[in-house]
Amino acid sequence: MIDLLDICAFNATYAHTIDSDALESWPAFFTEDCHYRVTHVENEQEGLAAGIVYADSRAMLEDRIAALREANIYERQRYRHLLGMPMVEAADDRTAQARTPFIVVRIMATGQSEVFATGVYQDRLVRRAGRLLLAERVAICDSTVTDTLMALPL
Amino acid sequence: MIDLLDICAFNATYAHTIDSDALESWPAFFTEDCHYRVTHVENEQEGLAAGIVYADSRAMLEDRIAALREANIYERQRYRHLLGMPMVEAADDRTAQARTPFIVVRIMATGQSEVFATGVYQDRLVRRAGRLLLAERVAICDSTVTDTLMALPL
Amino acid sequence: MIDLLDICAFNATYAHTIDSDALESWPAFFTEDCHYRVTHVENEQEGLAAGIVYADSRAMLEDRIAALREANIYERQRYRHLLGMPMVEAADDRTAQARTPFIVVRIMATGQSEVFATGVYQDRLVRRAGRLLLAERVAICDSTVTDTLMALPL
Repeated sequence: MIDLLDICAFNATYAHTIDSDALESWPAFFTEDCHYRVTHVENEQEGLAAGIVYADSRAMLEDRIAALREANIYERQRYRHLLGMPMVEAADDRTAQARTPFIVVRIMATGQSEVFATGVYQDRLVRRAGRLLLAERVAICDSTVTDTLMALPL
Repeated sequence: MIDLLDICAFNATYAHTIDSDALESWPAFFTEDCHYRVTHVENEQEGLAAGIVYADSRAMLEDRIAALREANIYERQRYRHLLGMPMVEAADDRTAQARTPFIVVRIMATGQSEVFATGVYQDRLVRRAGRLLLAERVAICDSTVTDTLMALPL
Repeated sequence: MIDLLDICAFNATYAHTIDSDALESWPAFFTEDCHYRVTHVENEQEGLAAGIVYADSRAMLEDRIAALREANIYERQRYRHLLGMPMVEAADDRTAQARTPFIVVRIMATGQSEVFATGVYQDRLVRRAGRLLLAERVAICDSTVTDTLMALPL
């Protein structure tokens, strides 16, 4: 069975990958036909699926990282994710559903740090060849005001 | 025995309940004759029990939520709790004492996010009919300056 | 074997010790010949070991606390650490290597709270006489702009 600590360990590695600028490894946390979306709480309540960021394959995530690299976005900001304990809503040997709260602090090149985003991941995880992968991650932000510079993955 | 992961899972559900605006379910995390208090570190060190918020029954918590609903407070702000790992200070089959650090970010309707409160929960948990419940939760805030708008539960 | 939950429990106690102003107990989390360092991500990438704070023995940590007490620094500020799940990179019965992300909020005497530091602990833990101790903790801050008032331990 996929348990709480499996998901914790998965999330810790996911966050570390983004925060240490290993962005090229980020798509590998997802299945090939994944659903990844960043949205905010009001959109989600109204059932608007479009969101702020939308991808329905790992290839789209890879494209996104390539675009970020071209824009040199990491020169100008870093993120630090702090994730809470997952709430495991369903789990068996091969799949799990969980919600995990997050706070993301953005550190600008000027040294200034600020709370950039808070919210909850709504996840569907699958086990493939012994490894956990995200079949779906919807990052639901608490704030409806979205920074148009939103660039690094949540 | 009540263990670390039991308390983690309990806290994750508690925080999710508040942060997803399911406030009516919040009192159900407490025993009927519970003690719930929000205070700050200087009051606590001086042994002043009154605090900022005080309740000594689940019924008082229910009253508090009813009052918040009437004031429509959730239209104007949301919270996001991020909780640390509990320090389990004592535990057996039926009761546990633990301290858990928290950071609460407040998200205003304008979209602005700010660190609203930090501190530590000082808890006494009991197991009743297989479920964990809070017999006592004292939320000790680090800051002595209290926002008079403090409204949603910590 | 030293496992994820052992390290979690260790970190929770470590953070609580600092945040509850039990600073004199802080050096006891380290081995006598420990390496403790606070640095930032750019220094670390360039292999500059000096950092912002540097100690290579528990005795140096004790000296640091004595100096802080003389400066009465805790009258003027408190910290609140929130730590993420450790990423355990290697572990056996006697040693473990882990990375743990942190957010530290500083609470000033005026009541103002702000994100003071974010980053990651890079740790080497050892088991001695049944207790975990830090043989090495490098706190790598995300921001290169260091508050010259940096005073309390990270």
